[in-house]
Amino acid sequence: MVSSPLVEQLIEALCCFPGVGQKSAQRMALYILEKNRDEGKRLADALQKAITSVGHCQNCRNLCESSQCTICSNPRRNQSLVCVVESPADVFAIEQSGLFQGIYFVLMGHLSPIDGIGPQELGIGQLKTKLENESLEELILATNPTVEGETTAHYIAELAKSYAIKTTRIAHGVPFGGELEYIDSGTLAHAFAGRLPL
Amino acid sequence: MVSSPLVEQLIEALCCFPGVGQKSAQRMALYILEKNRDEGKRLADALQKAITSVGHCQNCRNLCESSQCTICSNPRRNQSLVCVVESPADVFAIEQSGLFQGIYFVLMGHLSPIDGIGPQELGIGQLKTKLENESLEELILATNPTVEGETTAHYIAELAKSYAIKTTRIAHGVPFGGELEYIDSGTLAHAFAGRLPL
Repeated sequence: MVSSPLVEQLIEALCCFPGVGQKSAQRMALYILEKNRDEGKRLADALQKAITSVGHCQNCRNLCESSQCTICSNPRRNQSLVCVVESPADVFAIEQSGLFQGIYFVLMGHLSPIDGIGPQELGIGQLKTKLENESLEELILATNPTVEGETTAHYIAELAKSYAIKTTRIAHGVPFGGELEYIDSGTLAHAFAGRLPL
Repeated sequence: MVSSPLVEQLIEALCCFPGVGQKSAQRMALYILEKNRDEGKRLADALQKAITSVGHCQNCRNLCESSQCTICSNPRRNQSLVCVVESPADVFAIEQSGLFQGIYFVLMGHLSPIDGIGPQELGIGQLKTKLENESLEELILATNPTVEGETTAHYIAELAKSYAIKTTRIAHGVPFGGELEYIDSGTLAHAFAGRLPL
């Protein structure tokens, strides 16, 4: 029995996060209530605002509160270089590397007929319109190297072929700093198949 | 660069939790926005309500939104058996064991002169009034087995002595299921000193 119904409700609500169980939620709730109510207030506001205002960018489908996200509306980004990713988390990861200067197209998932996710759910229609109307320089497929991600990449590659747009897939191989001894055989096979002359 | 200022604010706000870094906060924010806005809404409400309404129980100092917490106001609890703990998390842990039928007194910390935490900050005055006015059967000291926790326990034990109230300290020793080989020497010393006849 918890001493207060409101505290109990807060702990239960915190359990909604992935990887947060009863014990972590308890720790989070007590931390907010005992030590940091101001931060808690800020979090409640940020949650409220984000939930009511954040929708999807009309251009790239990424999460965003206006009609175009800050990446798509940035005049310094190369609009003819489009990187297709599965989720906004992938955009974060690529942006953190700081190497890519084009824009994104966020599928918000991957083809998975068993879960009822087909081309329509991934905004493939929107991507098609883009391929049709904009003269793209290159379409980079950066879906995850899983069965579903590969399938999705192939599906989009086929689509792009009919518009004669240069389509590439990011390289898969041994990660930098990884030791060969610990790399799985699938990755090693990819690394050998994709070897480059020195 | 994140695609949306509101998403960025949410991620930053989520970093306030202990043990939650940039990456986990990102994962939490995206989970809420992509998959579970209803739960996010519920969390924002729960946070808001808890932060504005939760104060301290007038009797035991535990977190609670009314004048008395649900444990203190429960008629089935033995009001003359008081367990002194450092924090509400300790109350959760003891309640989960389901063994204790008395009430608590939550110090909300431990004596730590270096951080400016003296008897006043721990509500020792309130505990004194309790010892003076209520005919307590037993005072169980369940502060943590750390230097500060032990000091706090001794301080309160001295105080209780002057009111001739039976004061006990919870046992310290080898935890159930623990292997002797991995137990630190301090705990082993405690276990030997506190041995009981079979």
